[in-house]
Amino acid sequence: MNLVLLDREDLDARDGTAACAILRGRRLEHLRSVHRAQPGRELRVGLLGGMQGRATVESIDATVATLRIVLDTPPPPKLALTLLLALPRPKTLRRLLQTAATMGVPRVVLFNSWRVDKAYWNSPQLEAGAIAEQLRLGLEQGGDTVAPEVSLERLLVPFARERLDALAAGTRRLLAHPGAITDCPRHLAEPITLALGPEGGFIADEVALFARHGFEPVALGPRLLRVEQALPALLARWS
Amino acid sequence: MNLVLLDREDLDARDGTAACAILRGRRLEHLRSVHRAQPGRELRVGLLGGMQGRATVESIDATVATLRIVLDTPPPPKLALTLLLALPRPKTLRRLLQTAATMGVPRVVLFNSWRVDKAYWNSPQLEAGAIAEQLRLGLEQGGDTVAPEVSLERLLVPFARERLDALAAGTRRLLAHPGAITDCPRHLAEPITLALGPEGGFIADEVALFARHGFEPVALGPRLLRVEQALPALLARWS
Repeated sequence: MNLVLLDREDLDARDGTAACAILRGRRLEHLRSVHRAQPGRELRVGLLGGMQGRATVESIDATVATLRIVLDTPPPPKLALTLLLALPRPKTLRRLLQTAATMGVPRVVLFNSWRVDKAYWNSPQLEAGAIAEQLRLGLEQGGDTVAPEVSLERLLVPFARERLDALAAGTRRLLAHPGAITDCPRHLAEPITLALGPEGGFIADEVALFARHGFEPVALGPRLLRVEQALPALLARWS
Repeated sequence: MNLVLLDREDLDARDGTAACAILRGRRLEHLRSVHRAQPGRELRVGLLGGMQGRATVESIDATVATLRIVLDTPPPPKLALTLLLALPRPKTLRRLLQTAATMGVPRVVLFNSWRVDKAYWNSPQLEAGAIAEQLRLGLEQGGDTVAPEVSLERLLVPFARERLDALAAGTRRLLAHPGAITDCPRHLAEPITLALGPEGGFIADEVALFARHGFEPVALGPRLLRVEQALPALLARWS
Protein backbone atom coordinates (compact mmCIF):
# COMPACT_ATOMS: atom_id res chain seq x y z
CA MET A 1 0.00 0.00 0.00
CA ASN A 2 2.25 2.77 -1.33
CA LEU A 3 -0.74 5.10 -1.35
CA VAL A 4 -3.60 4.92 1.14
CA LEU A 5 -6.71 5.04 -1.01
CA LEU A 6 -9.65 6.86 0.57
CA ASP A 7 -13.34 6.74 -0.27
CA ARG A 8 -15.66 9.72 0.04
CA GLU A 9 -17.23 8.12 3.08
CA ASP A 10 -13.86 7.99 4.83
CA LEU A 11 -13.75 11.79 4.81
CA ASP A 12 -14.91 13.48 7.95
CA ALA A 13 -16.49 16.71 6.74
CA ARG A 14 -17.92 17.80 10.06
CA ASP A 15 -15.67 20.84 10.08
CA GLY A 16 -16.67 21.64 6.50
CA THR A 17 -13.21 21.19 4.99
CA ALA A 18 -13.07 17.41 4.47
CA ALA A 19 -9.47 17.66 5.63
CA CYS A 20 -9.74 14.67 7.90
CA ALA A 21 -10.19 10.95 7.18
CA ILE A 22 -11.20 8.07 9.42
CA LEU A 23 -9.87 4.57 8.67
CA ARG A 24 -10.95 1.20 9.98
CA GLY A 25 -10.61 -2.41 8.78
CA ARG A 26 -8.04 -3.56 6.19
CA ARG A 27 -6.35 -0.20 5.70
CA LEU A 28 -6.08 0.44 9.45
CA GLU A 29 -4.66 -3.05 9.93
CA HIS A 30 -2.13 -2.42 7.14
CA LEU A 31 -1.10 0.92 8.64
CA ARG A 32 -0.53 -0.76 11.99
CA SER A 33 1.14 -4.00 10.95
CA VAL A 34 3.12 -3.00 7.84
CA HIS A 35 3.69 0.74 8.17
CA ARG A 36 3.77 0.58 11.99
CA ALA A 37 2.26 4.04 11.79
CA GLN A 38 2.33 6.24 14.88
CA PRO A 39 0.85 9.73 15.40
CA GLY A 40 2.84 12.23 13.35
CA ARG A 41 3.69 9.73 10.62
CA GLU A 42 3.34 11.10 7.08
CA LEU A 43 1.72 8.97 4.39
CA ARG A 44 0.79 9.24 0.72
CA VAL A 45 -2.98 9.29 0.34
CA GLY A 46 -5.44 9.73 -2.49
CA LEU A 47 -9.18 9.91 -2.96
CA LEU A 48 -10.56 7.13 -5.16
CA GLY A 49 -11.41 8.80 -8.46
CA GLY A 50 -9.88 12.09 -7.34
CA MET A 51 -6.76 13.92 -6.26
CA GLN A 52 -3.87 12.66 -4.18
CA GLY A 53 -1.55 14.19 -1.60
CA ARG A 54 -0.21 13.71 1.91
CA ALA A 55 -1.67 12.72 5.25
CA THR A 56 -0.43 13.01 8.79
CA VAL A 57 -1.57 10.42 11.32
CA GLU A 58 -3.32 12.30 14.13
CA SER A 59 -4.27 9.26 16.17
CA ILE A 60 -4.22 5.51 15.68
CA ASP A 61 -5.30 2.59 17.83
CA ALA A 62 -6.67 -0.92 17.34
CA THR A 63 -10.06 0.27 16.09
CA VAL A 64 -9.58 3.55 14.23
CA ALA A 65 -7.03 5.89 12.70
CA THR A 66 -7.56 9.59 12.12
CA LEU A 67 -5.60 11.25 9.33
CA ARG A 68 -5.21 14.97 8.58
CA ILE A 69 -5.10 15.13 4.79
CA VAL A 70 -4.11 17.53 2.01
CA LEU A 71 -5.17 16.48 -1.49
CA ASP A 72 -3.44 18.78 -3.95
CA THR A 73 -1.81 16.60 -6.63
CA PRO A 74 -3.37 15.03 -9.74
CA PRO A 75 -2.88 11.28 -10.23
CA PRO A 76 -0.04 10.16 -12.54
CA PRO A 77 -0.87 10.10 -16.26
CA LYS A 78 -2.36 6.92 -17.69
CA LEU A 79 -0.98 4.97 -20.61
CA ALA A 80 -2.81 5.78 -23.86
CA LEU A 81 -3.81 2.15 -24.17
CA THR A 82 -6.89 -0.04 -24.22
CA LEU A 83 -6.19 -3.61 -23.16
CA LEU A 84 -8.24 -6.41 -24.69
CA LEU A 85 -7.51 -9.37 -22.44
CA ALA A 86 -8.70 -12.92 -23.06
CA LEU A 87 -10.29 -13.95 -19.79
CA PRO A 88 -7.60 -15.70 -17.72
CA ARG A 89 -8.13 -18.18 -14.92
CA PRO A 90 -9.54 -16.42 -11.83
CA LYS A 91 -6.31 -16.39 -9.83
CA THR A 92 -4.41 -14.93 -12.77
CA LEU A 93 -7.22 -12.46 -13.44
CA ARG A 94 -6.74 -10.98 -9.99
CA ARG A 95 -3.06 -10.40 -10.66
CA LEU A 96 -3.64 -8.98 -14.11
CA LEU A 97 -6.29 -6.55 -12.91
CA GLN A 98 -3.84 -5.39 -10.27
CA THR A 99 -1.09 -5.04 -12.87
CA ALA A 100 -3.36 -3.07 -15.21
CA ALA A 101 -4.29 -0.67 -12.39
CA THR A 102 -0.73 -0.42 -11.09
CA MET A 103 0.79 0.29 -14.49
CA GLY A 104 -1.80 2.85 -15.56
CA VAL A 105 -4.02 1.08 -18.10
CA PRO A 106 -7.19 3.18 -18.39
CA ARG A 107 -9.47 0.59 -19.99
CA VAL A 108 -9.65 -3.22 -19.91
CA VAL A 109 -12.00 -5.39 -21.94
CA LEU A 110 -12.14 -9.01 -20.82
CA PHE A 111 -13.19 -11.10 -23.81
CA ASN A 112 -13.84 -14.70 -24.67
CA SER A 113 -11.42 -16.67 -26.80
CA TRP A 114 -11.24 -20.27 -28.03
CA ARG A 115 -8.71 -21.37 -25.43
CA VAL A 116 -10.51 -19.69 -22.50
CA ASP A 117 -12.02 -22.30 -20.18
CA LYS A 118 -15.71 -21.42 -20.27
CA ALA A 119 -15.99 -22.10 -16.53
CA TYR A 120 -13.93 -18.96 -15.91
CA TRP A 121 -16.94 -16.87 -16.94
CA ASN A 122 -18.80 -18.13 -13.87
CA SER A 123 -16.09 -17.09 -11.45
CA PRO A 124 -17.11 -14.82 -8.55
CA GLN A 125 -13.92 -12.88 -9.44
CA LEU A 126 -15.93 -11.33 -12.27
CA GLU A 127 -18.46 -9.71 -9.95
CA ALA A 128 -18.16 -5.94 -9.93
CA GLY A 129 -17.14 -5.81 -6.26
CA ALA A 130 -14.40 -8.40 -6.75
CA ILE A 131 -13.01 -6.57 -9.77
CA ALA A 132 -13.12 -3.25 -7.93
CA GLU A 133 -11.21 -4.75 -5.01
CA GLN A 134 -8.35 -5.97 -7.23
CA LEU A 135 -8.19 -2.65 -9.06
CA ARG A 136 -8.02 -0.91 -5.72
CA LEU A 137 -5.08 -3.04 -4.60
CA GLY A 138 -3.36 -2.24 -7.89
CA LEU A 139 -3.94 1.50 -7.48
CA GLU A 140 -2.58 1.40 -3.93
CA GLN A 141 0.53 -0.36 -5.24
CA GLY A 142 1.13 1.96 -8.20
CA GLY A 143 0.19 5.19 -6.46
CA ASP A 144 -2.84 6.05 -8.56
CA THR A 145 -6.39 7.04 -7.67
CA VAL A 146 -8.31 6.44 -10.91
CA ALA A 147 -9.30 2.83 -11.59
CA PRO A 148 -9.40 1.43 -15.11
CA GLU A 149 -12.83 0.86 -16.64
CA VAL A 150 -13.37 -2.87 -16.97
CA SER A 151 -15.97 -4.41 -19.26
CA LEU A 152 -16.84 -7.99 -20.19
CA GLU A 153 -17.41 -9.40 -23.67
CA ARG A 154 -18.59 -12.96 -23.41
CA LEU A 155 -18.86 -13.48 -27.19
CA LEU A 156 -15.90 -12.58 -29.36
CA VAL A 157 -17.52 -12.53 -32.80
CA PRO A 158 -20.37 -10.09 -32.01
CA PHE A 159 -17.95 -7.98 -29.97
CA ALA A 160 -15.57 -7.77 -32.93
CA ARG A 161 -18.36 -7.09 -35.39
CA GLU A 162 -20.29 -4.53 -33.39
CA ARG A 163 -17.91 -2.75 -31.04
CA LEU A 164 -14.24 -3.43 -31.77
CA ASP A 165 -13.71 -0.87 -34.54
CA ALA A 166 -15.29 1.92 -32.55
CA LEU A 167 -13.29 0.95 -29.47
CA ALA A 168 -10.00 0.91 -31.40
CA ALA A 169 -10.69 3.94 -33.61
CA GLY A 170 -7.64 6.16 -34.01
CA THR A 171 -5.26 3.72 -32.31
CA ARG A 172 -2.41 1.48 -33.38
CA ARG A 173 -3.83 -2.04 -33.15
CA LEU A 174 -1.49 -4.74 -31.86
CA LEU A 175 -2.10 -8.41 -31.20
CA ALA A 176 0.41 -10.03 -28.83
CA HIS A 177 1.18 -13.27 -30.63
CA PRO A 178 4.28 -15.32 -29.76
CA GLY A 179 5.90 -16.40 -32.99
CA ALA A 180 4.90 -13.23 -34.85
CA ILE A 181 7.65 -11.96 -37.12
CA THR A 182 7.32 -8.34 -36.07
CA ASP A 183 8.98 -7.33 -32.80
CA CYS A 184 6.59 -5.47 -30.54
CA PRO A 185 7.30 -1.77 -31.17
CA ARG A 186 8.81 0.51 -28.55
CA HIS A 187 8.33 4.28 -28.23
CA LEU A 188 4.87 4.49 -29.74
CA ALA A 189 3.65 8.05 -29.88
CA GLU A 190 0.09 7.12 -30.87
CA PRO A 191 -2.52 5.45 -28.64
CA ILE A 192 -2.60 1.65 -28.65
CA THR A 193 -5.21 -1.05 -28.56
CA LEU A 194 -3.47 -4.21 -27.42
CA ALA A 195 -5.07 -7.65 -27.62
CA LEU A 196 -3.52 -10.25 -25.33
CA GLY A 197 -4.56 -13.88 -25.69
CA PRO A 198 -5.11 -16.67 -23.19
CA GLU A 199 -2.49 -19.21 -22.05
CA GLY A 200 -1.81 -21.19 -25.22
CA GLY A 201 -2.42 -18.12 -27.36
CA PHE A 202 -4.91 -17.21 -30.04
CA ILE A 203 -6.01 -19.78 -32.60
CA ALA A 204 -5.44 -18.98 -36.29
CA ASP A 205 -9.09 -17.98 -36.85
CA GLU A 206 -8.81 -15.42 -34.06
CA VAL A 207 -5.57 -13.98 -35.45
CA ALA A 208 -7.39 -13.67 -38.79
CA LEU A 209 -10.43 -12.07 -37.17
CA PHE A 210 -8.30 -9.46 -35.42
CA ALA A 211 -6.29 -8.93 -38.62
CA ARG A 212 -9.52 -8.05 -40.44
CA HIS A 213 -9.99 -5.34 -37.83
CA GLY A 214 -6.49 -3.97 -38.40
CA PHE A 215 -4.61 -5.75 -35.60
CA GLU A 216 -0.98 -6.55 -36.38
CA PRO A 217 0.59 -9.60 -34.70
CA VAL A 218 3.69 -8.69 -32.70
CA ALA A 219 5.98 -10.70 -30.42
CA LEU A 220 8.38 -10.03 -27.57
CA GLY A 221 11.10 -12.36 -28.87
CA PRO A 222 11.34 -16.12 -29.28
CA ARG A 223 10.35 -16.99 -25.73
CA LEU A 224 6.82 -17.81 -24.63
CA LEU A 225 5.78 -15.84 -21.57
CA ARG A 226 2.98 -16.48 -19.15
CA VAL A 227 0.23 -13.88 -19.48
CA GLU A 228 1.16 -12.39 -16.08
CA GLN A 229 4.73 -11.92 -17.35
CA ALA A 230 3.67 -10.76 -20.82
CA LEU A 231 1.42 -7.96 -19.58
CA PRO A 232 4.05 -6.02 -17.60
CA ALA A 233 6.61 -6.82 -20.30
CA LEU A 234 4.40 -5.34 -23.03
CA LEU A 235 3.32 -2.32 -21.01
CA ALA A 236 6.94 -1.57 -20.09
CA ARG A 237 7.70 -0.99 -23.74
CA TRP A 238 5.49 2.09 -23.68
CA SER A 239 5.57 3.27 -20.06
CA MET B 1 4.92 -26.81 -20.69
CA ASN B 2 5.69 -25.37 -24.10
CA LEU B 3 8.78 -27.54 -24.27
CA VAL B 4 9.06 -30.97 -22.66
CA LEU B 5 12.34 -30.87 -20.78
CA LEU B 6 14.20 -34.16 -20.69
CA ASP B 7 16.96 -35.33 -18.39
CA ARG B 8 19.80 -37.63 -19.48
CA GLU B 9 18.21 -40.43 -17.51
CA ASP B 10 14.98 -40.08 -19.51
CA LEU B 11 16.87 -41.08 -22.64
CA ASP B 12 16.65 -44.69 -23.59
CA ALA B 13 20.02 -45.42 -25.16
CA ARG B 14 19.57 -49.16 -25.49
CA ASP B 15 19.71 -48.87 -29.26
CA GLY B 16 22.83 -46.71 -29.03
CA THR B 17 21.26 -43.60 -30.58
CA ALA B 18 19.51 -42.02 -27.57
CA ALA B 19 16.69 -41.21 -29.97
CA CYS B 20 14.00 -42.35 -27.57
CA ALA B 21 12.81 -40.93 -24.23
CA ILE B 22 10.67 -42.47 -21.50
CA LEU B 23 8.48 -40.18 -19.37
CA ARG B 24 6.67 -40.84 -16.11
CA GLY B 25 5.31 -38.68 -13.29
CA ARG B 26 4.60 -34.94 -13.64
CA ARG B 27 5.52 -34.61 -17.30
CA LEU B 28 3.51 -37.69 -18.27
CA GLU B 29 0.56 -36.35 -16.31
CA HIS B 30 0.88 -32.98 -18.04
CA LEU B 31 1.07 -34.62 -21.48
CA ARG B 32 -2.08 -36.57 -20.74
CA SER B 33 -4.20 -33.96 -18.99
CA VAL B 34 -3.14 -30.70 -20.69
CA HIS B 35 -1.77 -31.73 -24.08
CA ARG B 36 -4.13 -34.73 -24.31
CA ALA B 37 -1.28 -36.33 -26.24
CA GLN B 38 -2.01 -39.43 -28.31
CA PRO B 39 0.42 -41.58 -30.32
CA GLY B 40 1.61 -39.62 -33.34
CA ARG B 41 1.40 -36.26 -31.56
CA GLU B 42 4.37 -33.96 -32.19
CA LEU B 43 5.88 -32.00 -29.30
CA ARG B 44 8.74 -29.60 -28.69
CA VAL B 45 11.38 -31.24 -26.50
CA GLY B 46 14.80 -30.34 -25.18
CA LEU B 47 17.52 -31.93 -23.13
CA LEU B 48 18.25 -30.08 -19.89
CA GLY B 49 21.56 -28.32 -20.47
CA GLY B 50 21.62 -29.35 -24.12
CA MET B 51 19.94 -29.14 -27.51
CA GLN B 52 16.27 -29.00 -28.34
CA GLY B 53 14.10 -30.31 -31.13
CA ARG B 54 10.96 -32.34 -31.81
CA ALA B 55 9.45 -35.52 -30.44
CA THR B 56 6.75 -37.83 -31.69
CA VAL B 57 4.69 -39.72 -29.14
CA GLU B 58 5.11 -43.43 -29.89
CA SER B 59 2.98 -44.72 -27.04
CA ILE B 60 1.31 -43.23 -23.98
CA ASP B 61 -0.76 -44.69 -21.17
CA ALA B 62 -1.39 -43.99 -17.48
CA THR B 63 2.09 -45.07 -16.38
CA VAL B 64 4.54 -44.24 -19.16
CA ALA B 65 5.01 -42.36 -22.42
CA THR B 66 7.59 -43.21 -25.06
CA LEU B 67 8.81 -40.41 -27.31
CA ARG B 68 10.90 -40.65 -30.48
CA ILE B 69 13.11 -37.57 -30.38
CA VAL B 70 15.34 -35.51 -32.67
CA LEU B 71 17.50 -32.90 -30.90
CA ASP B 72 19.02 -30.67 -33.57
CA THR B 73 18.43 -27.06 -32.52
CA PRO B 74 20.40 -24.90 -30.08
CA PRO B 75 18.45 -23.20 -27.29
CA PRO B 76 17.43 -19.54 -27.82
CA PRO B 77 20.08 -16.95 -26.97
CA LYS B 78 20.22 -15.65 -23.42
CA LEU B 79 20.04 -12.02 -22.38
CA ALA B 80 23.48 -10.55 -21.69
CA LEU B 81 22.45 -9.80 -18.14
CA THR B 82 23.29 -10.73 -14.58
CA LEU B 83 20.39 -10.22 -12.18
CA LEU B 84 21.13 -9.25 -8.60
CA LEU B 85 17.86 -9.87 -6.81
CA ALA B 86 17.16 -8.97 -3.19
CA LEU B 87 15.74 -12.17 -1.72
CA PRO B 88 11.94 -11.97 -2.05
CA ARG B 89 9.36 -13.81 0.02
CA PRO B 90 9.36 -17.53 -0.83
CA LYS B 91 6.17 -17.50 -2.91
CA THR B 92 7.44 -14.55 -4.94
CA LEU B 93 10.87 -16.14 -5.26
CA ARG B 94 9.32 -19.11 -7.03
CA ARG B 95 7.68 -16.85 -9.58
CA LEU B 96 10.79 -14.73 -10.09
CA LEU B 97 13.01 -17.75 -10.63
CA GLN B 98 10.53 -18.97 -13.21
CA THR B 99 10.47 -15.54 -14.87
CA ALA B 100 14.28 -15.37 -14.95
CA ALA B 101 14.47 -18.80 -16.59
CA THR B 102 11.58 -18.09 -18.98
CA MET B 103 12.96 -14.75 -20.12
CA GLY B 104 16.54 -15.95 -20.61
CA VAL B 105 18.48 -14.52 -17.69
CA PRO B 106 21.76 -16.52 -17.52
CA ARG B 107 22.79 -15.65 -13.96
CA VAL B 108 20.90 -14.75 -10.78
CA VAL B 109 22.46 -13.69 -7.49
CA LEU B 110 20.03 -13.66 -4.56
CA PHE B 111 21.35 -11.20 -2.02
CA ASN B 112 20.41 -9.81 1.35
CA SER B 113 19.11 -6.29 1.74
CA TRP B 114 17.86 -4.18 4.66
CA ARG B 115 14.18 -4.70 3.85
CA VAL B 116 14.48 -8.46 3.30
CA ASP B 117 12.75 -10.37 6.07
CA LYS B 118 15.60 -12.46 7.50
CA ALA B 119 13.26 -15.44 7.90
CA TYR B 120 13.21 -15.77 4.11
CA TRP B 121 16.79 -17.07 4.26
CA ASN B 122 15.53 -20.16 6.08
CA SER B 123 12.94 -21.02 3.45
CA PRO B 124 13.07 -24.52 1.96
CA GLN B 125 12.56 -22.72 -1.37
CA LEU B 126 16.28 -21.89 -1.22
CA GLU B 127 17.36 -25.54 -1.27
CA ALA B 128 19.11 -26.46 -4.49
CA GLY B 129 16.39 -28.92 -5.51
CA ALA B 130 13.61 -26.39 -4.97
CA ILE B 131 15.43 -23.74 -6.99
CA ALA B 132 16.14 -26.23 -9.78
CA GLU B 133 12.46 -27.19 -9.91
CA GLN B 134 11.32 -23.58 -10.38
CA LEU B 135 13.99 -22.95 -13.01
CA ARG B 136 12.84 -26.06 -14.81
CA LEU B 137 9.23 -24.84 -14.88
CA GLY B 138 10.46 -21.53 -16.24
CA LEU B 139 12.52 -23.20 -18.98
CA GLU B 140 9.56 -25.35 -19.99
CA GLN B 141 7.44 -22.19 -20.26
CA GLY B 142 9.96 -20.15 -22.22
CA GLY B 143 11.21 -22.96 -24.44
CA ASP B 144 14.78 -23.04 -23.21
CA THR B 145 17.03 -25.88 -22.04
CA VAL B 146 19.80 -24.07 -20.16
CA ALA B 147 18.97 -23.01 -16.59
CA PRO B 148 20.36 -19.81 -15.10
CA GLU B 149 23.10 -20.18 -12.53
CA VAL B 150 21.73 -19.14 -9.15
CA SER B 151 23.92 -18.20 -6.21
CA LEU B 152 23.17 -16.87 -2.72
CA GLU B 153 24.82 -13.94 -0.95
CA ARG B 154 23.59 -13.77 2.60
CA LEU B 155 25.69 -10.71 3.49
CA LEU B 156 25.54 -7.67 1.24
CA VAL B 157 28.58 -5.73 2.44
CA PRO B 158 31.16 -8.52 2.05
CA PHE B 159 29.54 -9.52 -1.24
CA ALA B 160 29.85 -5.96 -2.53
CA ARG B 161 33.40 -5.58 -1.26
CA GLU B 162 34.78 -8.92 -2.39
CA ARG B 163 32.84 -10.08 -5.41
CA LEU B 164 30.58 -7.42 -6.93
CA ASP B 165 33.16 -5.63 -9.06
CA ALA B 166 34.46 -8.85 -10.58
CA LEU B 167 30.90 -10.04 -11.23
CA ALA B 168 29.91 -6.77 -12.93
CA ALA B 169 33.19 -6.18 -14.78
CA GLY B 170 32.63 -4.92 -18.32
CA THR B 171 28.88 -4.38 -17.87
CA ARG B 172 26.54 -1.42 -17.61
CA ARG B 173 25.49 -1.36 -13.95
CA LEU B 174 21.89 -0.44 -13.24
CA LEU B 175 20.00 -0.25 -9.97
CA ALA B 176 16.21 -0.42 -10.31
CA HIS B 177 15.09 2.32 -7.97
CA PRO B 178 11.59 3.80 -8.18
CA GLY B 179 11.88 7.55 -7.94
CA ALA B 180 15.22 7.65 -9.78
CA ILE B 181 15.46 10.55 -12.20
CA THR B 182 16.91 8.51 -15.05
CA ASP B 183 14.47 6.45 -17.10
CA CYS B 184 15.63 2.86 -17.42
CA PRO B 185 17.45 2.68 -20.78
CA ARG B 186 16.14 0.73 -23.74
CA HIS B 187 18.19 -0.84 -26.56
CA LEU B 188 21.38 -1.45 -24.58
CA ALA B 189 24.07 -2.97 -26.74
CA GLU B 190 26.41 -3.76 -23.85
CA PRO B 191 25.93 -6.44 -21.18
CA ILE B 192 24.03 -5.40 -18.06
CA THR B 193 24.23 -6.06 -14.35
CA LEU B 194 20.84 -5.20 -12.90
CA ALA B 195 20.20 -4.89 -9.17
CA LEU B 196 16.56 -5.22 -8.16
CA GLY B 197 15.56 -4.46 -4.59
CA PRO B 198 13.01 -5.96 -2.22
CA GLU B 199 9.40 -4.83 -1.78
CA GLY B 200 9.79 -1.37 -0.29
CA GLY B 201 13.01 -0.81 -2.25
CA PHE B 202 16.59 -0.17 -1.30
CA ILE B 203 17.46 2.07 1.64
CA ALA B 204 19.63 5.12 0.99
CA ASP B 205 22.78 3.41 2.33
CA GLU B 206 22.31 0.59 -0.14
CA VAL B 207 21.80 2.97 -3.07
CA ALA B 208 25.04 4.66 -1.98
CA LEU B 209 26.86 1.33 -1.66
CA PHE B 210 25.84 0.27 -5.15
CA ALA B 211 26.69 3.75 -6.48
CA ARG B 212 30.24 3.33 -5.15
CA HIS B 213 30.42 0.21 -7.31
CA GLY B 214 29.23 2.07 -10.40
CA PHE B 215 25.51 1.28 -10.28
CA GLU B 216 23.25 4.00 -11.67
CA PRO B 217 19.72 4.29 -10.25
CA VAL B 218 17.05 4.01 -12.95
CA ALA B 219 13.26 3.91 -12.85
CA LEU B 220 10.44 2.66 -15.02
CA GLY B 221 8.27 5.75 -14.59
CA PRO B 222 6.43 7.26 -11.66
CA ARG B 223 4.54 4.11 -10.68
CA LEU B 224 5.72 1.65 -8.06
CA LEU B 225 5.61 -1.92 -9.32
CA ARG B 226 5.66 -5.14 -7.40
CA VAL B 227 8.92 -7.02 -7.89
CA GLU B 228 7.14 -9.71 -9.92
CA GLN B 229 5.86 -6.98 -12.26
CA ALA B 230 9.13 -5.05 -12.30
CA LEU B 231 11.27 -7.99 -13.36
CA PRO B 232 9.45 -8.78 -16.62
CA ALA B 233 8.99 -5.04 -17.23
CA LEU B 234 12.73 -4.40 -16.91
CA LEU B 235 13.78 -7.43 -18.92
CA ALA B 236 11.35 -6.53 -21.71
CA ARG B 237 13.27 -3.32 -22.29
CA TRP B 238 16.23 -5.38 -23.52
CA SER B 239 14.71 -8.59 -24.85
